[in-house]
Amino acid sequence: MAEFRRDPVDGRWVIIATERRKRFVGFHTEPYPESGERCPFCAGNEALTPKEIFAFREPGSLKDGPGWRVRVIPNREPILKVETEFEREGVGAYDKISGLGAHEIIVECPEHSQAYSQLSLKNLTEIYLAYRERMIDLRKDQRLKYVLIFKNYGRTAGAMMDHPHSQLIALPILPKQINEELRGAKEYYQYKERCIFCDIVRQELEDRDRLVFENREFLVISPWAPIFPFELWVVPKAHRPAFAPSSDELVGLLAEAVKSTMVKLDQVLQHPHFNLILHSAPFGEENLEYYHWHLEIMPRLTQVAGFEYGSGFYINPVSPEEATSWLLRVEG
Amino acid sequence: MAEFRRDPVDGRWVIIATERRKRFVGFHTEPYPESGERCPFCAGNEALTPKEIFAFREPGSLKDGPGWRVRVIPNREPILKVETEFEREGVGAYDKISGLGAHEIIVECPEHSQAYSQLSLKNLTEIYLAYRERMIDLRKDQRLKYVLIFKNYGRTAGAMMDHPHSQLIALPILPKQINEELRGAKEYYQYKERCIFCDIVRQELEDRDRLVFENREFLVISPWAPIFPFELWVVPKAHRPAFAPSSDELVGLLAEAVKSTMVKLDQVLQHPHFNLILHSAPFGEENLEYYHWHLEIMPRLTQVAGFEYGSGFYINPVSPEEATSWLLRVEG
Repeated sequence: MAEFRRDPVDGRWVIIATERRKRFVGFHTEPYPESGERCPFCAGNEALTPKEIFAFREPGSLKDGPGWRVRVIPNREPILKVETEFEREGVGAYDKISGLGAHEIIVECPEHSQAYSQLSLKNLTEIYLAYRERMIDLRKDQRLKYVLIFKNYGRTAGAMMDHPHSQLIALPILPKQINEELRGAKEYYQYKERCIFCDIVRQELEDRDRLVFENREFLVISPWAPIFPFELWVVPKAHRPAFAPSSDELVGLLAEAVKSTMVKLDQVLQHPHFNLILHSAPFGEENLEYYHWHLEIMPRLTQVAGFEYGSGFYINPVSPEEATSWLLRVEG
Repeated sequence: MAEFRRDPVDGRWVIIATERRKRFVGFHTEPYPESGERCPFCAGNEALTPKEIFAFREPGSLKDGPGWRVRVIPNREPILKVETEFEREGVGAYDKISGLGAHEIIVECPEHSQAYSQLSLKNLTEIYLAYRERMIDLRKDQRLKYVLIFKNYGRTAGAMMDHPHSQLIALPILPKQINEELRGAKEYYQYKERCIFCDIVRQELEDRDRLVFENREFLVISPWAPIFPFELWVVPKAHRPAFAPSSDELVGLLAEAVKSTMVKLDQVLQHPHFNLILHSAPFGEENLEYYHWHLEIMPRLTQVAGFEYGSGFYINPVSPEEATSWLLRVEG
């Protein structure tokens, strides 16, 4: 059974999940799986997956059969399980928590090979609506504090399957990065009595040299201090702390912003591998004065990925202003 | 000119270094350079590098000629330069600092192809003595707060050159991870009036199931909450906050601990790519009651390296107790 362990020095929680070993051959990562007829995420192969949790389906189609457009299933080998007692335990100076949580897959389309930038606006909208539905549902479990939703696209970004999909991990604790964002944003608010994200929106609309896209509800910006070349943030213009309360219309405008951005990235960087991560206020804190939910998109171009893990120290060879000017040269 | 930029939300500083672009072809990392006769780090090719800063040399050999055993040189394309005015600047809600600092290469041996585990004890000792000399020297510049010393070995770990070398980056600010370790260790001390590292040493000597190596001065442990499989820490047993005051004898015993560990890792993991990072108290804080300098060794086996950057959330498929039991089965 997996467990959360807390580093006693820096406070970071790590999941120790020895069941994940199947991915490793002599402790090394397995080669990237070939695409093939037996992909469990392809339409027609629904019997190869656990029973579906949620789906957008054609009228008349049956659960766990074809006819779906977006389909959410439990991970076949979940890192965390809801059917777990929530137990905290001290081990001398150390702390651990049982592996309570959930681990789900959002299959983004029925077809095996689809570039993210080529998904239709309706398809993207339904993917994000599925995110919203799962958040609203998982929020009912009072033991869960956070839902981490992310997409790894391509091997360099950590994807193990070719078929377009996102992942969802529900947690009884806050991820370190979210904790730090909340702490930083709170300090800023205490000092200035303004939301840092509202200030970022104001400043980027004024400066414009890091502004990649704008619609009625969203900005896409190259952030001031990106850790990766061409890192992009999709940020709501209005003060919106949590993603789950989003209206259908807002989700549609989010899809528009992401689609435009991905079309641009694919042209400038020739279909980069990337990570996409949804950041949102924790469960029960949906009304924070000092935080905006947002999407972070991180193309994975640099191989510098070395000591950064251990030092938290990043070197980025492309300024956000320069990345922006490249992205503005192409259609999106 | 490079500059430090601070993320206004999480407070992390990033170096924006557009001069590093030479490493990128159309924004993608260049292929791994071939080893060859023209390696600037090989003995005999000293003229291909900037003038040496420090070296351990055979008697009678001349500066910037062959005869050295370990050689420290400025990076040919430094990210940071000492000849920079230290300037802080606000840009609306944002902050930046000029690219003040230093960027040096520690060439670890004259031969082009040498496994780290095969370097002699004397060679390793001189490498770490060179680290110490450079720290003592750079500490004189009052504008510098921290020296980050690290080794990237192999492409997966971010190395761009085959010839054995470490890197040194001197900074006017603290790296995020060091800041967090200091904060966490300080909180523990305020609560318990004990150093967390002293407590870790005590507990690992008692539990023994994460203890990989011990000599008079050092423990090598699999830490309680490792972010990577087979992550290892080399920790001084006595309370020693900073590396620079280390005696020659202590450095020799460090070399012994690292050599034994690398010999074991090479057997169990078949010569893994790895990062090695020296963590030490910042300049001017060499007497902290709550911190130990230590070395972190991170084999790079997992391809999960995806969303972890953005979420600070790590999944490790090998428990530290299991890693330890594998390492204890082989000689080292």
